[in-house]
Amino acid sequence: MTITLYSLCGADAARPFSPHCWKVVMALHHKGLAFEERPLAFTAIPTTENGFSKTVPFIRDGQELISDSFRIAQYLEEHYPDEPSLFGGQGGVAAARFVEGYSQQVVHGVVSRIALSDIHAMLAPTDQDYFRKSREERLGRTLEEVAAGRDAAIAALPAALQPLRHMLGHQPFVGGATPLFADYIVFGALQWLKITTGSIHLPADDPVSRWFDRCLDLYEGVGRAVA
Amino acid sequence: MTITLYSLCGADAARPFSPHCWKVVMALHHKGLAFEERPLAFTAIPTTENGFSKTVPFIRDGQELISDSFRIAQYLEEHYPDEPSLFGGQGGVAAARFVEGYSQQVVHGVVSRIALSDIHAMLAPTDQDYFRKSREERLGRTLEEVAAGRDAAIAALPAALQPLRHMLGHQPFVGGATPLFADYIVFGALQWLKITTGSIHLPADDPVSRWFDRCLDLYEGVGRAVA
Repeated sequence: MTITLYSLCGADAARPFSPHCWKVVMALHHKGLAFEERPLAFTAIPTTENGFSKTVPFIRDGQELISDSFRIAQYLEEHYPDEPSLFGGQGGVAAARFVEGYSQQVVHGVVSRIALSDIHAMLAPTDQDYFRKSREERLGRTLEEVAAGRDAAIAALPAALQPLRHMLGHQPFVGGATPLFADYIVFGALQWLKITTGSIHLPADDPVSRWFDRCLDLYEGVGRAVA
Repeated sequence: MTITLYSLCGADAARPFSPHCWKVVMALHHKGLAFEERPLAFTAIPTTENGFSKTVPFIRDGQELISDSFRIAQYLEEHYPDEPSLFGGQGGVAAARFVEGYSQQVVHGVVSRIALSDIHAMLAPTDQDYFRKSREERLGRTLEEVAAGRDAAIAALPAALQPLRHMLGHQPFVGGATPLFADYIVFGALQWLKITTGSIHLPADDPVSRWFDRCLDLYEGVGRAVA
């Protein structure tokens, strides 16, 4: 049975860009599971699978529908225990929640401030209206005001990644010698930045860039295939 | 065989305050191992155990001497495998390095800026000279200049802990349902702040304060015994 992954796209369905969806793409490849990705426009999400979820990613696996990237990873770990582990034990599951906290509370903030206008530009017109309204309400600023801080956000990115750089002084992946879901969590954030803005805005010899390249190399370069 | 833990103190040997040493105190209790703590003044470290290590913590376990808090935790995990795990599997070991990166690169910076003058005041005169010289060289500022930014550092602390707060929305400890070494890593940073300044400078109802209290409750309140 092929799993269906509902993800997110703009006007071009061939360029899914959501950080949370990329986590699941990588997790499905990690488990070696066959899946079909169906990227949705923002405004198509509420009418898909009878409005099962307001957000993507969600997956259909036979009769099961599961939403939320972390819950999907836990579901895959539980239901496909014979495939390579996504967490490396219970300590890894628990610590991955902390990595999620770091990624969403620190990295996503900086990426948003860099990429917001680029994301808006990628969307179909209907989605642009939804996106502008929802994001401006959430941020309390116009997209143009956020865009004015873009250079400052790019300048702030290296410092935000310092915890990752420290870890990379000891090991090649957050997962240790090989990647785990914790890697895909942070990879998702930088892949989101790369697809929406064309760059991760870091020097090529930054340890974080080299780690990101190693992630792009995984699973026959699935991450590299979308640019 | 009782393990000896060499840790750090100021003029009062009853108030060891080093974040890295507290990680090891908690790790030894977690493993249920008997140990004797010998707090050293900064300037006593190079003459202890024939100058084995320039920094504390280090431990003597029979014929073995091991330095560096993370390496000590790994040593304990390896040599006392029948006691409760400090990492919860290989994924937990690897992710703990990331937690260490976050703690040292994000939390320690803020704590230093709050606590530096208090630490200096706790030290014996000889250590004060060493401390002032080494820290002013490292920071490129005088202790007094750092102290001038104390209120700003206190104001910056809650945001620095946001990744932890996100995680605490899902589970009571970084280790999940129960604490692991990853908890002790961040606990060490806030215990350092509390012992040196008298407070963790967070509201009592902050989820991080409640987590810190849970850590202080562990092992018959060993963390609470030093104030």
